Amino acid sequence: MALIKEVIIEYYRIPLPEIMEDAKHGLHTHFEVPIVKIKTDDGREGVGYTYTGGFGGKAICSLIANELTDILIGKDASCVESIWDKMNWGIHYVARGGLASFAIAACDIALWDLRAKKAGEPLYKLLGGASNRVKCYGGAIDLNFSLEKLLNNNQKYLDMGLKAVKIKLGQKTLAEDVKRVAAVRQLIGPDVTFMVDANMSWSVEKAIKAGREFLKYDILFLEEPTIPEDYAGYARIAEESGMAVAGGENLRTLTEFQHMLQYGHVDFPQPDASNVGGITGWLKVAHLTQAYNVSVSTHGMQELHVSLLAAMPNAGYLEMHSFPIDQYTTRPLVIDKETGMAIAPEVPGIGVTFDWDKLAPHKQDF
Amino acid sequence: MALIKEVIIEYYRIPLPEIMEDAKHGLHTHFEVPIVKIKTDDGREGVGYTYTGGFGGKAICSLIANELTDILIGKDASCVESIWDKMNWGIHYVARGGLASFAIAACDIALWDLRAKKAGEPLYKLLGGASNRVKCYGGAIDLNFSLEKLLNNNQKYLDMGLKAVKIKLGQKTLAEDVKRVAAVRQLIGPDVTFMVDANMSWSVEKAIKAGREFLKYDILFLEEPTIPEDYAGYARIAEESGMAVAGGENLRTLTEFQHMLQYGHVDFPQPDASNVGGITGWLKVAHLTQAYNVSVSTHGMQELHVSLLAAMPNAGYLEMHSFPIDQYTTRPLVIDKETGMAIAPEVPGIGVTFDWDKLAPHKQDF
Repeated sequence: MALIKEVIIEYYRIPLPEIMEDAKHGLHTHFEVPIVKIKTDDGREGVGYTYTGGFGGKAICSLIANELTDILIGKDASCVESIWDKMNWGIHYVARGGLASFAIAACDIALWDLRAKKAGEPLYKLLGGASNRVKCYGGAIDLNFSLEKLLNNNQKYLDMGLKAVKIKLGQKTLAEDVKRVAAVRQLIGPDVTFMVDANMSWSVEKAIKAGREFLKYDILFLEEPTIPEDYAGYARIAEESGMAVAGGENLRTLTEFQHMLQYGHVDFPQPDASNVGGITGWLKVAHLTQAYNVSVSTHGMQELHVSLLAAMPNAGYLEMHSFPIDQYTTRPLVIDKETGMAIAPEVPGIGVTFDWDKLAPHKQDF
Repeated sequence: MALIKEVIIEYYRIPLPEIMEDAKHGLHTHFEVPIVKIKTDDGREGVGYTYTGGFGGKAICSLIANELTDILIGKDASCVESIWDKMNWGIHYVARGGLASFAIAACDIALWDLRAKKAGEPLYKLLGGASNRVKCYGGAIDLNFSLEKLLNNNQKYLDMGLKAVKIKLGQKTLAEDVKRVAAVRQLIGPDVTFMVDANMSWSVEKAIKAGREFLKYDILFLEEPTIPEDYAGYARIAEESGMAVAGGENLRTLTEFQHMLQYGHVDFPQPDASNVGGITGWLKVAHLTQAYNVSVSTHGMQELHVSLLAAMPNAGYLEMHSFPIDQYTTRPLVIDKETGMAIAPEVPGIGVTFDWDKLAPHKQDF
């Protein structure tokens, strides 16, 4: 038995290589990475983290420092799921999803790092090991890119060996969106998988109309066509447009996914371990997708999600997100050039080792 | 036009007069009150606040200080609902309910204080003024009280003039709960309204069984019989037990209330302005209850909610909560001894003026 004796919290705010835009969050200039180090009394350390699109990271650190640390200290670090439950109920009145799911995630991921290191196993094996690799797509935040830049960016994805790409939608007119979709399909050819993402910006009626327009471009899925809470709307969009629908990056709890899946018609649920309560929360959602007979995909933090998805028998697609957290680790995402699949790390632990020297200039107080 | 020029955030952690227990949150020893003062360039000031059951208050202050302040500064303070929308979307990725709804609430309530002061109107009139008074019940956190103390506490409520009381359920056996319910009904007599609250602690099946047991004690509603997300479960409990159901203190967004009401059978929705995005968020829920042809009640912060409920044509019950925030204001809740109704304040603004000297010893850094 190893008891938790120390919780260290660090906050990093990292500029993006360029300003990126999507339809509802607007301009992105930075991302935030709150990191949690959990030390046990047998001398081990687990490292976990979460991330945001630039807002809320300091409050996440405050919540970990002022509330979750007290819950963690003294607990048997082996009992990860029990600790997860205690974190959720300990701050339930201000939690039940939202910002708390990020804070709990960072702590939970550190506990999984401890568990996998102690087991001497890479995460993808500890979680079942269906495979050590998973299909992967390049997911750009490119709404503000000119058509030329949009095509260049997708060419870069192809040059990396990726066999799937996703672009943002939500231009001023649907005709402009269609023009970009047509141009990208022409560039990538008929054999590359192609997804689109409206970032919650449309009404249900507009999404149905848009979905029908895009059918002829062989789109795998239309992501977040409208606000995430409108589960009935998602079902209507899928049914009436004939386009498969994806969503989940803005759902923060198992029960939110349960509501989404119960309404049906979301073929590509995309839980994100960083904001759905960590690996424990993500696994619960992944099991739920199996119960509903759909695949499970992910949003963001590709350096960690590669191991989660590779482990799953019903793995869908790994998003290689435009927030390059993996570039601040010692093993940026590895793509097999021939198949375009992402390869899970083989080292014991979660397989995410931060490059502390590279992170150091971006550290701030919280 | 008055522009917001300064946002001041203060954090207070206040001990309860005694340790109180409910079935799921456990022991309560303190409550937290984050307070926001918003100053405009015409020399006015509005004061808003939120509260918690003892956890998360510092992270709420951090979120206001690090994110919401930037959104507020420079805005035209008159455009309250537009600012509310900007706060919600500005931090959407870490918001959509949860902890962010408390932070947004504190800011929004300060803006309503400014609006009502500028209009020279008490809040209940500015919101419609259906009445200046509302039915009120004493809501104790009394699960750990002995039977004798439970009865004494309810006698105190009767002595104050209240015509309605609520007790906590969730003892080790249902028989013990029934015994306490029977004893309280005997004490208060047949004409006093009586509610019960299980604080999310039961399964749906147990709640149905319990609801049937309580029917003969003429209980107005059974509050939060199970976890707040199980909307279908709430509907089954109401249908199959025949007992009216209440809930809402753990819902943080308009769409969560929409899901709850769409499933139906929650006769007493209880939004709390402090955790559903302030007065703006509360009003949206109140309008939704009208659309669904049910009353609207409240949870907590009676010193503010008295004005909100008095204004509503479909007002249900005001809870006089056991967190005595009103005792730290210059006008603790006023009860009309004859009717047992709570009376809304007549001063311009939200009618909540803190007693800063009384609060001072409880101020902490956040």
